[in-house]
Amino acid sequence: MMDEYFDAAVAEAGYGLAEGGIPIGSVLVHKGKIIGRGHNRRIQQGSAILHGEMDALENAGRLSAAVYADSVLYTTLSPCAMCSGAILLYGIPRVVVGENVTFRGEEDLLRERGVSVEVLQDQRCIEMMRRFIQEYPALWNEDIGV
Amino acid sequence: MMDEYFDAAVAEAGYGLAEGGIPIGSVLVHKGKIIGRGHNRRIQQGSAILHGEMDALENAGRLSAAVYADSVLYTTLSPCAMCSGAILLYGIPRVVVGENVTFRGEEDLLRERGVSVEVLQDQRCIEMMRRFIQEYPALWNEDIGV
Repeated sequence: MMDEYFDAAVAEAGYGLAEGGIPIGSVLVHKGKIIGRGHNRRIQQGSAILHGEMDALENAGRLSAAVYADSVLYTTLSPCAMCSGAILLYGIPRVVVGENVTFRGEEDLLRERGVSVEVLQDQRCIEMMRRFIQEYPALWNEDIGV
Repeated sequence: MMDEYFDAAVAEAGYGLAEGGIPIGSVLVHKGKIIGRGHNRRIQQGSAILHGEMDALENAGRLSAAVYADSVLYTTLSPCAMCSGAILLYGIPRVVVGENVTFRGEEDLLRERGVSVEVLQDQRCIEMMRRFIQEYPALWNEDIGV
C-alpha cells in the first residue's frame, strides 16, 4: 500500500518534468486516501513558493489540525526549510522521502521536533534530480536559494 | 525610512481584514524598494500556504539568492514555522516583526541560524490580531495548525 502513495508522488514529479519543470512531486495521504497532490511549479507558474510539498498542501485545501495529525506526506526529495516548516506548522507526523542524495533538507530539524522521516533512496528520484541539476544548475540553485 | 516599509506591511494586514481575511501583512524590501507585498489569504482564496509572508514572497516572484541576501522582510506578526522556513530557504538576513504577543513563531530558530529578528510590539498589530482571534478563534487556530 505504501508504494502506491509514493508512486503517486513520483508520478507528480514526472508531470512536472513533462511540463518543463523541476521534477519534485508530493502527495498528502489521510487515512489511506490521497487528499492533496502536487509538484514543483517554479518554472511553470513563476512561483517562489510552490515546491512540490507546498503545492500538495495547497491543493489539499484548508484542513483542520486533526486531519494533518493523521496524515502522511510522501515527497520525492528531502524537504527544504520552507517545506519542513510547513510540515511542522501543520503537525504532519510522518514524512516519506524519495531521496536525500541530490539535496538534503531539514530532516534533522524535523526529527528533532518529533516528525518521523523515512528516506527511501529511490533510484527513479535520484536519477530525475541528477539529470535535472546537471542540465539546469542555475534553475536548481534558484529553487534552493543558492 | 524603516517606518514606511513597516507601515506598508500594516496596510497589507488592513487590506486582508477589509477582505474578511486574517489581518497579517508583509512586504519584502530590496535596497530601499518594496519588491513584494502581500497578506494572509487563507479565507479569501481557501489557501493553506498563503500566509502574509508567503504571499509577499510569491508576489515578489522568482529572485536570485543575491537579491534575497540583500533584502529585509517586514511582517506584522511573528513568523510561523512555514514562513520562517521560507526565510531560511532564501537566506533573507533580516526580519522586522510587528509583534509576538498574540503569537510567537520560530524567532529562536531564525536567530539560531543567524537571521536578525527585530520585534516592534506595534500596538496596531497587537490590536488587530487580538480582535480577530477573539472573534474568530477557530479560523485562527486553523491558520496556525492548532
